[in-house]
Amino acid sequence: MLIVGELINASRKAIGEAIKAQDVEYIQKVAKDEFEAGANYIDVNAGIFVGKEPEYLQWLVKLVQEVVDCPCCLDSPDPKAIEAALSVHKGTPMINSISLEKERYDALLPVIAGTDLKVVALCMSDDGMPETMDARLKIAEKLIGGLVKNNVPIENIYVDPLVQPLSVNSSFAVEFINSVEAIMTQFKGVHTMCGLSNISYGLPVRKFMNQAFAIMAIAKGLDGLIINPLDKMMMASLVTAEALAGRDNFCVNYLKAFRNKQFDFLG
Amino acid sequence: MLIVGELINASRKAIGEAIKAQDVEYIQKVAKDEFEAGANYIDVNAGIFVGKEPEYLQWLVKLVQEVVDCPCCLDSPDPKAIEAALSVHKGTPMINSISLEKERYDALLPVIAGTDLKVVALCMSDDGMPETMDARLKIAEKLIGGLVKNNVPIENIYVDPLVQPLSVNSSFAVEFINSVEAIMTQFKGVHTMCGLSNISYGLPVRKFMNQAFAIMAIAKGLDGLIINPLDKMMMASLVTAEALAGRDNFCVNYLKAFRNKQFDFLG
Repeated sequence: MLIVGELINASRKAIGEAIKAQDVEYIQKVAKDEFEAGANYIDVNAGIFVGKEPEYLQWLVKLVQEVVDCPCCLDSPDPKAIEAALSVHKGTPMINSISLEKERYDALLPVIAGTDLKVVALCMSDDGMPETMDARLKIAEKLIGGLVKNNVPIENIYVDPLVQPLSVNSSFAVEFINSVEAIMTQFKGVHTMCGLSNISYGLPVRKFMNQAFAIMAIAKGLDGLIINPLDKMMMASLVTAEALAGRDNFCVNYLKAFRNKQFDFLG
Repeated sequence: MLIVGELINASRKAIGEAIKAQDVEYIQKVAKDEFEAGANYIDVNAGIFVGKEPEYLQWLVKLVQEVVDCPCCLDSPDPKAIEAALSVHKGTPMINSISLEKERYDALLPVIAGTDLKVVALCMSDDGMPETMDARLKIAEKLIGGLVKNNVPIENIYVDPLVQPLSVNSSFAVEFINSVEAIMTQFKGVHTMCGLSNISYGLPVRKFMNQAFAIMAIAKGLDGLIINPLDKMMMASLVTAEALAGRDNFCVNYLKAFRNKQFDFLG
């Protein structure tokens, strides 16, 4: 399971303020916390700073990689911001994200083509957000096809089928998890990943629902998540779901998590 | 989701002693608690009392139905015990369980054939416990075929694919949940159900794992469970998983559970 730590995102108030104030210490503390809690990539996003996004995204990458030995997930639709970040990034980052929206696709494809970058391929097109499994599959097929044709290995592609709120339509969770299963089955070697919080938008007890949704998606084959790795219950759920999904031989990681007291929050 | 309350089982020490002591009050309290917590059927099991099982099972059914307006799940492989219980049962009970083991199958089929009884069809044969999805499917096909041929409507059949411990084989949870999906897809109208606790046998943090496993199985189509309905976290997980599985229009039950403070244990 690939875990992307989602916290260093300018749309979160504390991070937005820290970026504005150039608060190195705070950003680096969050990066360290995420890494120590199990993040494989640290997402960096400076999207709210129009005009300054390239500069700030580059700054974030530098700060993060000064304190953790971990690649970043460069969270921007803007090729200028991505390129500024890439110019200082050590190792192989993940680009978050390309989509089938023409402007975004055309702008990001040249940056990604022929590289060994990991890339999130978001199931969104100029026709809007897909609601059904079929609509998602059509977009996924075009995105995967286009990327592979442009020499991006399928193993480097993380399709994000796009989570939509259950409060809007009672079938949105099922359509999503069935999309995960279909994508993982039909495109051998590809990965799937997503953020979770949209699923519970407008509903109470959101963290609990997000976590159940993650477990269900893992049952269907999801192998990547953009989450808050400091959420102890979420991380315990993931290590448990991974064991149940047959991805943890002899439950080694599950037992290690138990020994490391990662279930102690249960009391 | 059909919920069978598992607590009135003689193999649990307090219940075994209560049956022996003919402690009406205790048994009836447990039945009431299970019903109020959301059980649709109350499982009754007197299996440890060799020779006295028919008498005790009948007694349990009477006691339970004196205090709750709810059918029982008659938990015995012995047709004599089942028939004794049936003779006093009000409404339509569930028989738990027939299997493909020849002796058990031949003994229970005449009791069930041509009735409107609900029946748990356990994926077990004289060849032992199935380990793979394919082995489970073969048994399920024979059980469903045999029951339907004997005029048991497919809608009354709850196939139990048989949970086996993850500690024994890291693929046992996946084989189980994939069996659920295959059975629900291939035999339209049939149900699937199971108990959970075997999955975590030999591992720590069992309740948490059982619950994640339940959520995964529901993602794959499971629509029945034999559980302890007094387990608040389990019940909260089920109402959440049901909403995510698209079985709760407009999240009515989820929101009702929230208003009824069923998530308050989360703090």
